[in-house]
Amino acid sequence: MKCSKCGGMAVINLHQHRLRLCEAHFLDWFTSMAQRAVEHYQMFTPDDRLLVAVSGGKDSLALWDVLLRLGYQAEGMYISLGIDEGIGYSATSRAMCHKFVVEHHPEAVLHVVDLAAEYGRGIPELARSEHRGRGKPCAVCGLVKRHIMNRVARDGGYAAIATGHNLDDEAAVLLQNTLHWQAGYLARQAPVLQEREGLARKVKPLVRCYERESAAYTLLRGIDYIYDECPFARGATTNFYKELLNDLELRSPGAKQQFYLHFLRARAAGQVRFEGPAPETIEGEDPSGLQSCTRCGQPTTAGSLCAFCRLWERR
Amino acid sequence: MKCSKCGGMAVINLHQHRLRLCEAHFLDWFTSMAQRAVEHYQMFTPDDRLLVAVSGGKDSLALWDVLLRLGYQAEGMYISLGIDEGIGYSATSRAMCHKFVVEHHPEAVLHVVDLAAEYGRGIPELARSEHRGRGKPCAVCGLVKRHIMNRVARDGGYAAIATGHNLDDEAAVLLQNTLHWQAGYLARQAPVLQEREGLARKVKPLVRCYERESAAYTLLRGIDYIYDECPFARGATTNFYKELLNDLELRSPGAKQQFYLHFLRARAAGQVRFEGPAPETIEGEDPSGLQSCTRCGQPTTAGSLCAFCRLWERR
Repeated sequence: MKCSKCGGMAVINLHQHRLRLCEAHFLDWFTSMAQRAVEHYQMFTPDDRLLVAVSGGKDSLALWDVLLRLGYQAEGMYISLGIDEGIGYSATSRAMCHKFVVEHHPEAVLHVVDLAAEYGRGIPELARSEHRGRGKPCAVCGLVKRHIMNRVARDGGYAAIATGHNLDDEAAVLLQNTLHWQAGYLARQAPVLQEREGLARKVKPLVRCYERESAAYTLLRGIDYIYDECPFARGATTNFYKELLNDLELRSPGAKQQFYLHFLRARAAGQVRFEGPAPETIEGEDPSGLQSCTRCGQPTTAGSLCAFCRLWERR
Repeated sequence: MKCSKCGGMAVINLHQHRLRLCEAHFLDWFTSMAQRAVEHYQMFTPDDRLLVAVSGGKDSLALWDVLLRLGYQAEGMYISLGIDEGIGYSATSRAMCHKFVVEHHPEAVLHVVDLAAEYGRGIPELARSEHRGRGKPCAVCGLVKRHIMNRVARDGGYAAIATGHNLDDEAAVLLQNTLHWQAGYLARQAPVLQEREGLARKVKPLVRCYERESAAYTLLRGIDYIYDECPFARGATTNFYKELLNDLELRSPGAKQQFYLHFLRARAAGQVRFEGPAPETIEGEDPSGLQSCTRCGQPTTAGSLCAFCRLWERR
C-alpha cells in the first residue's frame, strides 16, 4: 500500500477520502483536518485562549496535541471524577494527562479539579444519593463536568472550551436524535455552540475526523492514553449507534461522514429545518428563561438553585 | 404465552405494542390496524373503487385479503414482468395471485397485464437495451410498474392504487433518505400520495404493520405466497437498511415504528420541515412542470415522450 502523496509506505487507508497515507503525511493530514474545521466553522483564532477538556483518552489528547502543534493557546483541563471500579479509572486517566504534558509538551498548562477533594464526593458516591444516577451515573457525571468546565472557563476568561468529540461521536448522537426525531436537539447539534448568558462557547475541532483516525494519530505520535472507556459507559446506547454506523460505513465508505456533514449543510441551507421545545436539560442548556443560581451564579432554568448545587444538598 | 385479550394460547408476541395475541385476536388486530390507517390518513371510503397492486408476495396478498374482508371494493392488479432467472419468478408469483382468488375470494376481480405479450419485451430484455438497467433492472422495472399501474387506474376510473408497503419498507426508505438528508424525498414520503395532474392517488394501508406481522397474517389465514424475493432485488440497499433497523428493533422494541411514525407526526406538526428540489424521478414524480406524453398521454417531465414510451424506442 503506497502513500497517495509521496509513494512511500502507507500506514493508513482513509477509504472515505480515497487516500492512503504514510506516517508523515497522515500526521499532516490529520492536523490540517482539525485546522480546516477550526477555520470553516470559525471556532477561534490564535489570539484566543482555549480550555481543552482532557480525559486521558485518545480524542482529547489528540486534540490538545494538535492545537498546541498548530500554535494555539490551549490549556488542558482535567476533572478527576473519583471513578475507580476496580481498574483505577480516574487515577490512570489523570496519570495519562500528566504523562502527555511531561513527554510531549512540558511547557503546557494542565488544570486539575479533583471532585472529591474540592466538593467532598466523587461521582459514584454522588450518583448513589441522587435518583437520576441510580441506574447509571452518566447523567450526573455529565452535569458535573459541564458545570465545572463552564465555571473554570468563565472564571479564567477563556474564549472557548474545546472538546475532543469526533465524527463517530457526533454521527452517533445525530442518529439517536434522528431516530427519535428530537427536533429540539436536532436544531442545535453543531460543531460550535455559541456563548450565551453565562454559558461558555464550546467548540469541537475534531468533528470531521473518524475515531480510528484520532486513534491512529495518537499511536503514531507516541501519545499514551487510557484504552479503557469509563466502566460506567459500557453498553451505553451511543455505543450501539456507533456500531450501527460502523456497519453502514463498512458497506459504503464515507456514509458516516456524509450523514453528519450533509446534515449540517442541509440545515445551513434551510433544506431541513427543526423547531421544537428546547431539550430538557440541566445547567441552562435551554436557551430561554435562564436565571442565575443563587449559590454559584451559573445560569439555570431550574429555579433558585442550579441542578449542580442541588446535587450537594442531598446526602 | 397467553393472549392479552382472551387468555387463550398466544401465537405471536407484538413486543412493540406489549401485546400477545391468539390466532383469532391477531387476525382481528391486524385487520383493525389496516382499517385504522385507512381512517387516520383518510385513504379512501367504502364507496371508492380501489386497484390493489398485487405481486404474489405476502404483503400485497395480505392487503388485498384485508381490504376484501373489510368490505372494500378492491380489485387486484398483477403485472407479469417476464422474470424467470431459473426460478420461474414471474410464473410462480402470477400463479399465487390466481390461487389466492380461487381459494379465498372467488368473486374477486384480478387484472393481469403481461408485459411481454402486450409490449413485446419483458423486464430482463428491456433492461439490457437500456443503460439505466445494465447493472440491475430495478429502476426500469419500477418505471414500468408505475406507468402501467397508473394507466390502468386512470383508464378504469379507480379512486386509488393501494400498495402493500409495510412499516419495514417505509422505515427503510426513510432511513435511506435520512442518512443522505434527501430533503426532496423527505418532504413527500407519506402513507398517501395525492392524485395530481394525471397521476393516480396512491395509498399504503399496511404502513403501520411490521413485515413479520403481514407474514404471520398470511400464514394464519392460510394464504400461499411466493417466498422468494425477486432475484434482481437480492443485495438491494433497502434490505441492508432493513437489517440495520432490525438490529435496532431487537435492542429496543418499537424503535422502528417510532422512527417512522414520529417522523410523520413531527413533520405534520412543523417540528421538522424539508424543502428541496423535487426528487429526480421518472414518470412525472416531479410535481412541477408536468406535460402530457405525446404518445400515451401520461404526465411526464421528460419532454415530448415520457420515460416509459422512450424505453421502447431502443432496441
